[in-house]
Amino acid sequence: MTTTSTLTRQACQARDAADPLRGLREHFTLPPGVIYLDGNSLGVLPRAAAGRIADVVTREWGTDLIQSWNSAGWFDLTQRLGDQLAPLIGARAGEVVCTDSTSINLYKVLSAALNIARADAPGRRRIVSERSNFPTDLYIAEGLCKERGLELVLVEPEEIGAALTQEVAVLMLTHVNYRTGAMHDMAAVTAQAHAAGILCVWDLAHSAGAVPVDLHGAGADFAIGCGYKYLNGGPGAPAFVWVHPRHADRFWQPLSGWWGHAAPFQFTPDYQPAPGVARYLCGTQPIISLSALQCGLDVFTAAQSLGSMAALRAKSLALTDLFIALVEERCAGHGLGLATPRDHAQRGSQVCLEKDEGAYAIVQALIARGVVGDFRKGDGGTGRHKDILRFGFTPLYIGFEDVWNAVEHLRQVLEAAEWQRPEFNRQHAVT
Amino acid sequence: MTTTSTLTRQACQARDAADPLRGLREHFTLPPGVIYLDGNSLGVLPRAAAGRIADVVTREWGTDLIQSWNSAGWFDLTQRLGDQLAPLIGARAGEVVCTDSTSINLYKVLSAALNIARADAPGRRRIVSERSNFPTDLYIAEGLCKERGLELVLVEPEEIGAALTQEVAVLMLTHVNYRTGAMHDMAAVTAQAHAAGILCVWDLAHSAGAVPVDLHGAGADFAIGCGYKYLNGGPGAPAFVWVHPRHADRFWQPLSGWWGHAAPFQFTPDYQPAPGVARYLCGTQPIISLSALQCGLDVFTAAQSLGSMAALRAKSLALTDLFIALVEERCAGHGLGLATPRDHAQRGSQVCLEKDEGAYAIVQALIARGVVGDFRKGDGGTGRHKDILRFGFTPLYIGFEDVWNAVEHLRQVLEAAEWQRPEFNRQHAVT
Repeated sequence: MTTTSTLTRQACQARDAADPLRGLREHFTLPPGVIYLDGNSLGVLPRAAAGRIADVVTREWGTDLIQSWNSAGWFDLTQRLGDQLAPLIGARAGEVVCTDSTSINLYKVLSAALNIARADAPGRRRIVSERSNFPTDLYIAEGLCKERGLELVLVEPEEIGAALTQEVAVLMLTHVNYRTGAMHDMAAVTAQAHAAGILCVWDLAHSAGAVPVDLHGAGADFAIGCGYKYLNGGPGAPAFVWVHPRHADRFWQPLSGWWGHAAPFQFTPDYQPAPGVARYLCGTQPIISLSALQCGLDVFTAAQSLGSMAALRAKSLALTDLFIALVEERCAGHGLGLATPRDHAQRGSQVCLEKDEGAYAIVQALIARGVVGDFRKGDGGTGRHKDILRFGFTPLYIGFEDVWNAVEHLRQVLEAAEWQRPEFNRQHAVT
Repeated sequence: MTTTSTLTRQACQARDAADPLRGLREHFTLPPGVIYLDGNSLGVLPRAAAGRIADVVTREWGTDLIQSWNSAGWFDLTQRLGDQLAPLIGARAGEVVCTDSTSINLYKVLSAALNIARADAPGRRRIVSERSNFPTDLYIAEGLCKERGLELVLVEPEEIGAALTQEVAVLMLTHVNYRTGAMHDMAAVTAQAHAAGILCVWDLAHSAGAVPVDLHGAGADFAIGCGYKYLNGGPGAPAFVWVHPRHADRFWQPLSGWWGHAAPFQFTPDYQPAPGVARYLCGTQPIISLSALQCGLDVFTAAQSLGSMAALRAKSLALTDLFIALVEERCAGHGLGLATPRDHAQRGSQVCLEKDEGAYAIVQALIARGVVGDFRKGDGGTGRHKDILRFGFTPLYIGFEDVWNAVEHLRQVLEAAEWQRPEFNRQHAVT
């Protein structure tokens, strides 16, 4: 979709100058000298966060102390943030809470989904998911299956349809794949599952704030997602959980703590779940980290006048199109393959490049030059996937010239075989 | 144990002047004009926290971004804080992690305890606890029992011994009762349970940092506790979990997320639990809130040279003895009763006063005067408990003159019937 005329630095500068979303980057404090293409792992710092958090710490905690549960609105922060997030994922006010971690929220909704699906059809004993789903999702499902004597069936993306048999209770998918950036058609897959009597749980970790999501439009059943990636909520920010109103009041979720009680401050010895999604709360939440998440969500609220997710999506696709085109033109002949779908309808907000050898070292060499992406291992077990260089493009703060510069660094790293230096070939933990 | 000569303001001032722990209050930013007797609900702000959190936000997150998982030690923060906390509860390095909420950690250890107890004796189908245990503990146990077809049996404290039958798998108790401040003899109760083939899960929410705890000495099996009360970790601070090494490698806990995996960054599709307590981790943790908890723990580390928990305990008992003596001498004739045991061996670090009428309003009147305690309802259902005025005494930052002043305010509120004013009789949410 790109033409030669766009593939110059000057053309990229012109696109930045004409970009109506360009001003949004002023909402963030970007690290100096860095092109940050890792917002899909940890989003950047909203400019308002330092001041907001200082106020939470020194005034709300330090001075007002316990009364801040009321006066500073700590009590309903999980629900207020949920309401603020809801429009980004096609949910309505009162249907979302920001709380706990993605893994824990998945445990809650997967438990509830199994209870609902199996109440009507106890013979349905399977959860189906993708083998390349983010591992913690698979671990949580594996744990639940082990505990309840059920079966987790893992398939490749193209095998999902055939796996939706009458043995299946729940289909659990991540909307945008963390490794490849490939995106499912949520409405089509959900309809296919529902036609087979199967409930759908969607993980929106790489979707919320990155691509338009319409949970109601898709008829989805349950969704969970992450606060610290595209929502820019800070390291380990609390996650979120959405439950369709048709399911919200059915069954307890098993983590039945006092914050999910209908009247937590009555201190009754027996549990009565709150109506709606509030029963998906459990214990007291980390207020300082929740307050940082609010600063991330505030940027999306501020962006609403600019067209919000539709405008962000258009820019995201323009950025990823540009990156693909530039890599293919300027980095040809170095064995890079494209792991991310070219089809817009199947692409999230990241581009992943495959390479047989040196992917880790190339990422390290780029980081040394201030271009921050990340590395994901191929799954050696099946040999199905090569090692991956992963680049996230967050339209809130990444511009077209950033893309040009990133590819130019990649070109130089490859041309000069810079990545073969020993210092770029020492492995350590990565996220 | 107090004599008349100690019951003057001047005597209290003299005790403060002679107190070797007096300097510890300099580690905190205390709210001006306030006597804060609610550290058992939300601890105060450590002086170092504002600077530390600002550094985490602006440098570790804002500038260093994703590399802080390695360079700032975010990855192993849950375990480093666990090691720092361990000496306060009689645990060893490598046995504790700081993570998630108290409720969620209870779900993990209660699940594991049930699995272990019932592996050898599947006929044991009961969890025993106290009816006046903190409600979220009961809710979590109720949820687990419902899910697994087990039975939760609630008894009064004096009935625990008789309830420890061969039908019981797990005894789940809170060490110091949140309502009354009554403390169990952990070693004796654990021994009694073990003699009956029953495992013990201890909630240390009102113990850690408040009273000496010796989990190994007591032979306890599992423990969990709270970061935001006596540990001064900030609002909703992550909680902690301890597992005795004899149990740690047996069974998965059901929240089998990637942070509890033996090799989380191998991204394998199947779950392999980490050895030891690390398998009690689940998802990514809120780093900013965890960093605040570290500031709270740092004060205990700094206090170690002063004798640590034994010295803090001696001062705590002196403070609560003084409060009881002053209330009984100076507030007599107003219908206040003592809900907290006089016996030191049975008392936590709080004093609770019972009253037939007006407890809520008296607490409100005291708060208006800058004396912050809190109110807990009696359980009207059984008629067993009256409404309670609850006062926590944190020896890290409360002094003897503070106690004198607090009781003097209470005396004035009662003498002038100040609490009967309408503005102190409007009910709202309390924590």
